[in-house]
Amino acid sequence: MLKIAVAGLGTVGAEVLKVLDRQADLLTRRCGRALVVDAVSARDRSRDRGVDLSTVRWFDDAAEMAADPAIDVVVELIGGSDGIARDVCAAALAKGKHVVTANKALLAERGPELVMAAEGSGATLAYEAAIAGGIPIVKAIREGLTGNRIDAVAGILNGTCNYILSEMRSTGRDFADVLAEAQQLGYAEADPGLDIDGIDAAHKLALLAGLAFNGTVSFDQVPVEGIRHVSAMDIGFAEALGYRIKLLGLARRRPDGIEIRVHPCMIQPSDPIASVEGVFNAVEAHGDGVGYVMSVGRGAGAGPTASAVVADLADIARGNRPPILGAPAEDLRPLTVLPMARRRGPYYLRLMVVDRPGVIADITAHMRDHQISVESLLQRGRAPGEAVPVVLLTHETDEAAMMAALGQINTLDSVLEPARLIRIERFDV
Amino acid sequence: MLKIAVAGLGTVGAEVLKVLDRQADLLTRRCGRALVVDAVSARDRSRDRGVDLSTVRWFDDAAEMAADPAIDVVVELIGGSDGIARDVCAAALAKGKHVVTANKALLAERGPELVMAAEGSGATLAYEAAIAGGIPIVKAIREGLTGNRIDAVAGILNGTCNYILSEMRSTGRDFADVLAEAQQLGYAEADPGLDIDGIDAAHKLALLAGLAFNGTVSFDQVPVEGIRHVSAMDIGFAEALGYRIKLLGLARRRPDGIEIRVHPCMIQPSDPIASVEGVFNAVEAHGDGVGYVMSVGRGAGAGPTASAVVADLADIARGNRPPILGAPAEDLRPLTVLPMARRRGPYYLRLMVVDRPGVIADITAHMRDHQISVESLLQRGRAPGEAVPVVLLTHETDEAAMMAALGQINTLDSVLEPARLIRIERFDV
Repeated sequence: MLKIAVAGLGTVGAEVLKVLDRQADLLTRRCGRALVVDAVSARDRSRDRGVDLSTVRWFDDAAEMAADPAIDVVVELIGGSDGIARDVCAAALAKGKHVVTANKALLAERGPELVMAAEGSGATLAYEAAIAGGIPIVKAIREGLTGNRIDAVAGILNGTCNYILSEMRSTGRDFADVLAEAQQLGYAEADPGLDIDGIDAAHKLALLAGLAFNGTVSFDQVPVEGIRHVSAMDIGFAEALGYRIKLLGLARRRPDGIEIRVHPCMIQPSDPIASVEGVFNAVEAHGDGVGYVMSVGRGAGAGPTASAVVADLADIARGNRPPILGAPAEDLRPLTVLPMARRRGPYYLRLMVVDRPGVIADITAHMRDHQISVESLLQRGRAPGEAVPVVLLTHETDEAAMMAALGQINTLDSVLEPARLIRIERFDV
Repeated sequence: MLKIAVAGLGTVGAEVLKVLDRQADLLTRRCGRALVVDAVSARDRSRDRGVDLSTVRWFDDAAEMAADPAIDVVVELIGGSDGIARDVCAAALAKGKHVVTANKALLAERGPELVMAAEGSGATLAYEAAIAGGIPIVKAIREGLTGNRIDAVAGILNGTCNYILSEMRSTGRDFADVLAEAQQLGYAEADPGLDIDGIDAAHKLALLAGLAFNGTVSFDQVPVEGIRHVSAMDIGFAEALGYRIKLLGLARRRPDGIEIRVHPCMIQPSDPIASVEGVFNAVEAHGDGVGYVMSVGRGAGAGPTASAVVADLADIARGNRPPILGAPAEDLRPLTVLPMARRRGPYYLRLMVVDRPGVIADITAHMRDHQISVESLLQRGRAPGEAVPVVLLTHETDEAAMMAALGQINTLDSVLEPARLIRIERFDV
């Protein structure tokens, strides 16, 4: 029997209890032993969560529960990168108890100390739910592709952003409007910053890249740009130019370090990841043996998250304990993160300019001065003396050159607002 | 140290040796012990395979090698559902040695006896490479989704067929032409029947369904239809009607048994699996907790197959031994396979008829007599007295009714050749 304690009984915690109850027989057969919830802890004991808590021990103090001698594994579903979530994990690992968590913020910001604690006490720290929710991507990379040197990973790592961008594209509505609707539907938080500013995606990407490249990546080294500035106009232009806009997290192995970043990308509709719409997540990887692989599924929500948590519990019950970060932590070195200025690729640039002769010449002169070659230029509509959009696509360009040119272009009198820039990306299939 | 014997040194066997050599350090770190090839066996000792065999023991008799006391695990890459491949696996399992195989034909036809032998001797039988090649789908379903009741699985399980259908669609060429090219490129065998008649896909589907539904499925119970009869004309009509044609293996849990079959399907281009093109494979699954998940990758070739074989070896090295079929074999019952006649869904029907008045009335009368409701009808081109194609799409219809109507329609004087039927499928996302 595997004795489980669950810290945090929000929708995910309650769902984990429901799944362990509903699938009890199936899981016992599949794992060779029963998975039993022995204790729980949450803020409010009286709240009705639709689960029977009469047979489990209640703890007001989750850290006390985590240290309880009868417990084999603690499921941490409190959230937050510090405070009680961290205390619970540290208390359990210090006692040699396994920890299962869905907490990407905690792992991205406190990962190394927790992994060292786990390895020191012989416990495991399992986190399938922390990256791309229900998609078993940690398992795929750490075990399924373990014979490969992974050269690149990329993904749609935030369902809220993907939902908003998908809706904007299919309805033509603008960002603020769709965000408000997503909040009403429960797809976005009242304080949506973690999602729409790309922070949540960057947390997951830092974990994913560490796992893929067998090193550690500090979250604060990941350049992040969210989707607040993606406008209906840009989505329309992307469509017209044969592209689609997705918020991607990308990491690539380079000879002298890794490229890693989160930002809106223009990708071709024929890219398999381009057809991943709505709240779905997807992760692509490129291994030296297997080539291109991609997995798609729901990245959030009670059911998918509980599915991943229960898979981790089943692994623990079966005694499957691969190295937490893919290799022993003592072997892992911090990965060298290349500066964003080293990015090279094509760019989409959209400017609002005064419609008068010479404007395009001024803009393209600055691009020429930085050796930036224009692939195409689009000026839709005429309104002499008024503001009109101008779109430029560049050939392969260095980010540093692009930023320098942009700085000068933004100072032109005829350029009415800061240019919008979207990087064009292609993940080799 | 894990001592490995490899039986069969074709392109996959040689690649497994290369990967174990190239990634030796990485694998030792990731698995906590070295993965060492101790012995090999193949037909021709003198052939140059681009690998150094000077440090490994050579066996002319693979079954003798499999029984060698020094060996921990035997990798069977000989192929075929009987004969030497079966002898090698049986010899190893009888001695309590683990077996890793890529042999779907063997597993689909001899699976139960091998699994019983393995469980009897405490060995494992690992077969990640046997389903969808490099995609870690066995791991995903058996471990990653273990907290779910899986309700449906479907997939593009044969890269040769997917390549042919993708090429036919993008170039407009006909089947025979593209097949010949695929043979030249090495994407299709000289004797292509196993692939294009759907047998290979059915082998994999039988395994996949058994794993997903925790039961056993006899391969000969799977209705199979290949792609020989898919014409350029049908692909053109599918496009015009807003569909794409893919060879899918499908299995769904029903209250009184399972639906399972392999045949060409018309699916909507917005279905995520529709964008999986060329030699790629994909597997979709629906779990009661996780919802829809899909994985994409290369289903064949030395690199992807070796990636899966090495992942199985790594699992064995790490001591990860989930039940071979997802639950102990003694608990598994043969699944009740529902007859094909129980299929219900829309149909595409394409007829070659004499262009004269009354033909459509005769055809639709037979459909009406079987309560089949026509959703749309398309007759392109006019050639009075000559052969013209007529296409009908039906609403949801029972397969039994469709077959009865088809039998009568095919006897009409004005119907010049047997009607082509393609089932329209939708996998709930």
